Amino acid sequence: VANNSFGKHFRITTWGESHGKAIGVVVDGCPARLELSEADINEELKRRAPGANAWVSPRKEEDRAEILSGLFEGETTGAPISIIIPNTNQDSSKYEPIKELYRPGHANYTYLKKYGIFDYRGGGRASARETACRVAAGAIAKKLLATQNIHVVAYLKGVGDMSVDMDMSVDLSDLPSVLKARNSSPLFCPDVLTENEIIRRVDRAKSEGDSLGGVVECITAGLPVGLGDPVYEKIEANLAKAMMSLPASKGVEFGCGFAAAAMRGSEHNDAFGVNGLLSNRSGGILGGITTGELLSLRVAFKPTSSIKKQQQTTDLQGNIREFTLPKGSRHDPCVAIRAVVVVEAMAALVLADAFLAAQLQPILQNACASYATSVPSL
Amino acid sequence: VANNSFGKHFRITTWGESHGKAIGVVVDGCPARLELSEADINEELKRRAPGANAWVSPRKEEDRAEILSGLFEGETTGAPISIIIPNTNQDSSKYEPIKELYRPGHANYTYLKKYGIFDYRGGGRASARETACRVAAGAIAKKLLATQNIHVVAYLKGVGDMSVDMDMSVDLSDLPSVLKARNSSPLFCPDVLTENEIIRRVDRAKSEGDSLGGVVECITAGLPVGLGDPVYEKIEANLAKAMMSLPASKGVEFGCGFAAAAMRGSEHNDAFGVNGLLSNRSGGILGGITTGELLSLRVAFKPTSSIKKQQQTTDLQGNIREFTLPKGSRHDPCVAIRAVVVVEAMAALVLADAFLAAQLQPILQNACASYATSVPSL
Amino acid sequence: VANNSFGKHFRITTWGESHGKAIGVVVDGCPARLELSEADINEELKRRAPGANAWVSPRKEEDRAEILSGLFEGETTGAPISIIIPNTNQDSSKYEPIKELYRPGHANYTYLKKYGIFDYRGGGRASARETACRVAAGAIAKKLLATQNIHVVAYLKGVGDMSVDMDMSVDLSDLPSVLKARNSSPLFCPDVLTENEIIRRVDRAKSEGDSLGGVVECITAGLPVGLGDPVYEKIEANLAKAMMSLPASKGVEFGCGFAAAAMRGSEHNDAFGVNGLLSNRSGGILGGITTGELLSLRVAFKPTSSIKKQQQTTDLQGNIREFTLPKGSRHDPCVAIRAVVVVEAMAALVLADAFLAAQLQPILQNACASYATSVPSL
Amino acid sequence: VANNSFGKHFRITTWGESHGKAIGVVVDGCPARLELSEADINEELKRRAPGANAWVSPRKEEDRAEILSGLFEGETTGAPISIIIPNTNQDSSKYEPIKELYRPGHANYTYLKKYGIFDYRGGGRASARETACRVAAGAIAKKLLATQNIHVVAYLKGVGDMSVDMDMSVDLSDLPSVLKARNSSPLFCPDVLTENEIIRRVDRAKSEGDSLGGVVECITAGLPVGLGDPVYEKIEANLAKAMMSLPASKGVEFGCGFAAAAMRGSEHNDAFGVNGLLSNRSGGILGGITTGELLSLRVAFKPTSSIKKQQQTTDLQGNIREFTLPKGSRHDPCVAIRAVVVVEAMAALVLADAFLAAQLQPILQNACASYATSVPSL
Repeated sequence: VANNSFGKHFRITTWGESHGKAIGVVVDGCPARLELSEADINEELKRRAPGANAWVSPRKEEDRAEILSGLFEGETTGAPISIIIPNTNQDSSKYEPIKELYRPGHANYTYLKKYGIFDYRGGGRASARETACRVAAGAIAKKLLATQNIHVVAYLKGVGDMSVDMDMSVDLSDLPSVLKARNSSPLFCPDVLTENEIIRRVDRAKSEGDSLGGVVECITAGLPVGLGDPVYEKIEANLAKAMMSLPASKGVEFGCGFAAAAMRGSEHNDAFGVNGLLSNRSGGILGGITTGELLSLRVAFKPTSSIKKQQQTTDLQGNIREFTLPKGSRHDPCVAIRAVVVVEAMAALVLADAFLAAQLQPILQNACASYATSVPSL
Repeated sequence: VANNSFGKHFRITTWGESHGKAIGVVVDGCPARLELSEADINEELKRRAPGANAWVSPRKEEDRAEILSGLFEGETTGAPISIIIPNTNQDSSKYEPIKELYRPGHANYTYLKKYGIFDYRGGGRASARETACRVAAGAIAKKLLATQNIHVVAYLKGVGDMSVDMDMSVDLSDLPSVLKARNSSPLFCPDVLTENEIIRRVDRAKSEGDSLGGVVECITAGLPVGLGDPVYEKIEANLAKAMMSLPASKGVEFGCGFAAAAMRGSEHNDAFGVNGLLSNRSGGILGGITTGELLSLRVAFKPTSSIKKQQQTTDLQGNIREFTLPKGSRHDPCVAIRAVVVVEAMAALVLADAFLAAQLQPILQNACASYATSVPSL
Repeated sequence: VANNSFGKHFRITTWGESHGKAIGVVVDGCPARLELSEADINEELKRRAPGANAWVSPRKEEDRAEILSGLFEGETTGAPISIIIPNTNQDSSKYEPIKELYRPGHANYTYLKKYGIFDYRGGGRASARETACRVAAGAIAKKLLATQNIHVVAYLKGVGDMSVDMDMSVDLSDLPSVLKARNSSPLFCPDVLTENEIIRRVDRAKSEGDSLGGVVECITAGLPVGLGDPVYEKIEANLAKAMMSLPASKGVEFGCGFAAAAMRGSEHNDAFGVNGLLSNRSGGILGGITTGELLSLRVAFKPTSSIKKQQQTTDLQGNIREFTLPKGSRHDPCVAIRAVVVVEAMAALVLADAFLAAQLQPILQNACASYATSVPSL
Repeated sequence: VANNSFGKHFRITTWGESHGKAIGVVVDGCPARLELSEADINEELKRRAPGANAWVSPRKEEDRAEILSGLFEGETTGAPISIIIPNTNQDSSKYEPIKELYRPGHANYTYLKKYGIFDYRGGGRASARETACRVAAGAIAKKLLATQNIHVVAYLKGVGDMSVDMDMSVDLSDLPSVLKARNSSPLFCPDVLTENEIIRRVDRAKSEGDSLGGVVECITAGLPVGLGDPVYEKIEANLAKAMMSLPASKGVEFGCGFAAAAMRGSEHNDAFGVNGLLSNRSGGILGGITTGELLSLRVAFKPTSSIKKQQQTTDLQGNIREFTLPKGSRHDPCVAIRAVVVVEAMAALVLADAFLAAQLQPILQNACASYATSVPSL
């Protein structure tokens, strides 16, 4: 069943396995005349790429995207944009020893049961490598949103019970500063104290052959009132789908999120003032439609499944076996770190789609408004 | 933009406003030959209906569904099933005093900005009344799943910081008992002690003109391995979209959910044993595909926006005004209670859709398997 | 499998059988603020209704549509518009004698094989009665298009080898006159001489217990350049799908159509002049996109399958039987006549959808054009 | 607006321009475990490739497809199959002289008006080169259908008023012979006498700097009863959409097609006999569902727009100009010839999609049938 496309108006189709020749994405529905270059995409890919520092996977993936179609003289043409990212650094041989084992926390179990076939080298479509394609497509979505002064910013909110506390109505009013701090952090964490503590924890887990979970927060600024289409294309519904389609994500929340379940209406409701809402506990959404305030969401990521510690498993025949990661395996000690870039990309894709969808309504309001005065001649 | 359909293979299209003549749903894609009657649907609607007890909205909605198409001699025919639920108990006049005001926590602000028009009587499409249609359609999905011995069970997990603690591998092994307890609870809460405490809190909030948020948990038993289609139609992605399309929902999580973000890989990974997984922290999902274990999710609902306490707002022209609910307004003190039935319905719709999608794969495996031996004659 | 929705942005979902309680349609995606009333819809339904004269089915179907949702104070609100048309004149008993027989030219054979169940009373979803819902929805699409001065006009082109010859660049320049002549014809045929000959032929076929096929032509005026999205949502691709989804249609062609296959390039190419194209052999489409000229298409309808003459068939068990229409059966001697109204509706639905889709592009061109001068502040 | 995907369950997304680096297609939804190799695809591409003989375009396109994903050990895995075909033989420079002119019969006019940008080198997305991707994807669809003994065969039916007369119930009973004759014909025309006459005509038109239109017929054998989903996913509706999405196609018809419009019901109806239908005027479809008989359709192609004869046009500013093809331009004298391969591919794509869709129904019939006896335990 076809399941590798996301989005309705601004639609992506991704393909490729972690250990094949390449991975790629086709972006369909991007309007014509947007300035675009390979550099725009590679800059984003570089942010996601492993090997950058001690707290992410030491793999060296080059991740250089090539645009194969959809551009003419530096601008989009309305035609589909095909992007290819060659796989250059995979080493399949090391997977040989575990090819007959179910990997704890991994999808080779469910893929094998569902499809009856699984490429044991790497994670196939379930590999986080697939998210590079989302980032490549997200770079285009971000560029489109930027033409409207809409900006999506994600950062590492926390790891374990440690987390950055941002007051959306105060700290984030200076989003450029947050962004700057985030960009200079190897962990995408805009608060130095938190960052240091997270580094300590990641280092410890790593040294113990273990991994950590984490939470990514994503803020969007500059949204107009009106994006999102109730009742089934609500903006948070599509954002939630986007986030839960990511590998390792286990939850998503908006505004006060789960904390709202412990609040009273008089505490949670945002009052209306002369210049819009006086607070933003709703996270920038009412009735599935953006309010024009900052849109905020958080995504929970489970700890990386691939750990050095020995674990129990079975082989494909059901015999009890010990599972040990192949020597030389390279994995992120905390997937939430690099997920920051992917969350940002997915949010941008959903918002670009919603932005396009919103064009259908205002235009027509005008058309119909002018209807009263223009009597059709026929 | 068309946004009132949900699902791909088992697809619903809902329509109707809280203060119009009726609401309804068209269910498209239900396979032929499923036994179905209006009673099947009305039984579910009755569970969601307000007026049942002191802790839900005192409105008396009859909510009797009529099936207008798609049946022949008590069975579905493969044709679309149109269900209509007349609106019988609405009183639009009481909304007159607030027709010019933005309602705190409500969607009339965003609807007005987006569409330039809003039926001030009731909540229009943003009304929780719309969810009756989801429940009606969900009744059919549940019936379809039941033919496969798949059962979806939701219950009120908690209100405020009070919550039922279910151990998925212990307490839920006796799902029929949980179900029985849930069914005999006016709050859909299967634990009597928790239920009593929740009742106390709801009573207090109500008496103070306030409202409460809450969390609904949903467990599905009997799922085969293999439902869900990575990478963008992962089972949790579609469940998340379904839940976040509900009025008042602010977050959704699967398995350990946000708690997973504070765990280590060695704690979170479920080991494989001779008879499948030895634990179920993943919530029954690996790589977006069901593992065959209990599928578990939780949805956070914000406190009801409509409260008796006075709140600040503005009128449509931006003048500061006090907002007071019209006299005689009837609202749920805690939307999470009745949401239990709706969460169950939405989960059933997603799973029925995924179940149908899964038919595409196994059949063909067989076809292709038999390919080797059957040489095409042409 | 869900198959009762048509269109992407302006989407309809139809339901109902010819012998059920009602039929209906949900129109989703109509922009807000379009003036609309039940009269708008009933006027179109009346044109399609049988019983109008001697050359269509003598059934008396009242076909009065009721709008159940989506309107407020005479305007659309952006919410789905649910329309219901009660079935008032069906007599199911007369189908008893043929309930065990395959009907020549009919779909009860394929429905039974596919679904394992068929409501032998009437034609179920395969009944031409279903097209009333398309006409109801088409009425809204036509109203939307009229706000843009786009007008869709279909007429009976011919029956047998007799057909009206319209020169698109001459006769149709006076489309209002054509329209007037069409509207005053009981056969929707704008040419009186042709009409008279067609009447003679229909009368003869009818008296012999037989039926006739026919061709409907559909012209759209006022289209801007730019509707249609290559490569798979070309305007003619979606129009072809729409027309071939109609009962009894067997072919569709655009511009010169099949005659183009017998032409040379030098004859067929339309030259460009100072004010657009100098001829219109392409039928108003180049590369799947409207050229701004009249869009023209023709649909071939087979002769009505239900005829009084005796035919050979088998019963459901495969025994040879004679098939005779039940006494009192009422059928159109030539389905192409009433199909005129349905072709018009389907064309309007496709064009309204394409019109909405086209809003996604120009808006953004402007946005991107203005991008150069507006430097994003972040 | 996203428009480069086709199909619902077996879905393709194509990309690439005639003068870019490459073209390609992503096939999504192909079931796992289908044997597949690059040779399977290249064999089909070779049939479509120009340069084969004197009656098609003399361009030398190598058209060697590379499969970049979705395979493991020679079998599909359920993951998307990405196919890339490098562009190797394009010469963009020769388009310089006509970059400022609207090309008669071409889409650069409408593309420029719609998107505000057009790659004047070649035809961009409107180029027939795009159809190579359809053929590549169609090769997989054909392989899938072959596992079910379903075979799609297209051939050149006619050019001008000359055409092969096939009696579907007689000549096509020996489809393998037809296929053999077709395969040995440079024009894909299975009748030698017709072929010779067509060659004479094409030669004459070519020598006069002109082009010819033509008709392609497509027959599918081995279909089960039951493919196609009324009312909007009728098999002929999707086939019509597929065919009218092809460059240069102007009409499509099924069974007797337009000739049916001149027939009487008693002539057109196919009677039922002991072993199915006694004739096949319906073309293998009743009520939008396959009958199990041969499915037949015909597509009309206009004459190639690119001709050597001088034509009138204007430049982008609206000044009258003479249009002459650039020296060395290489075009097919009759696009219908190579279109044979593309029609076959598109039919295969639609039928593979319908075949998958049909899996949703029978499985469930069994499930529901077994429902009566299996009482749910909960």
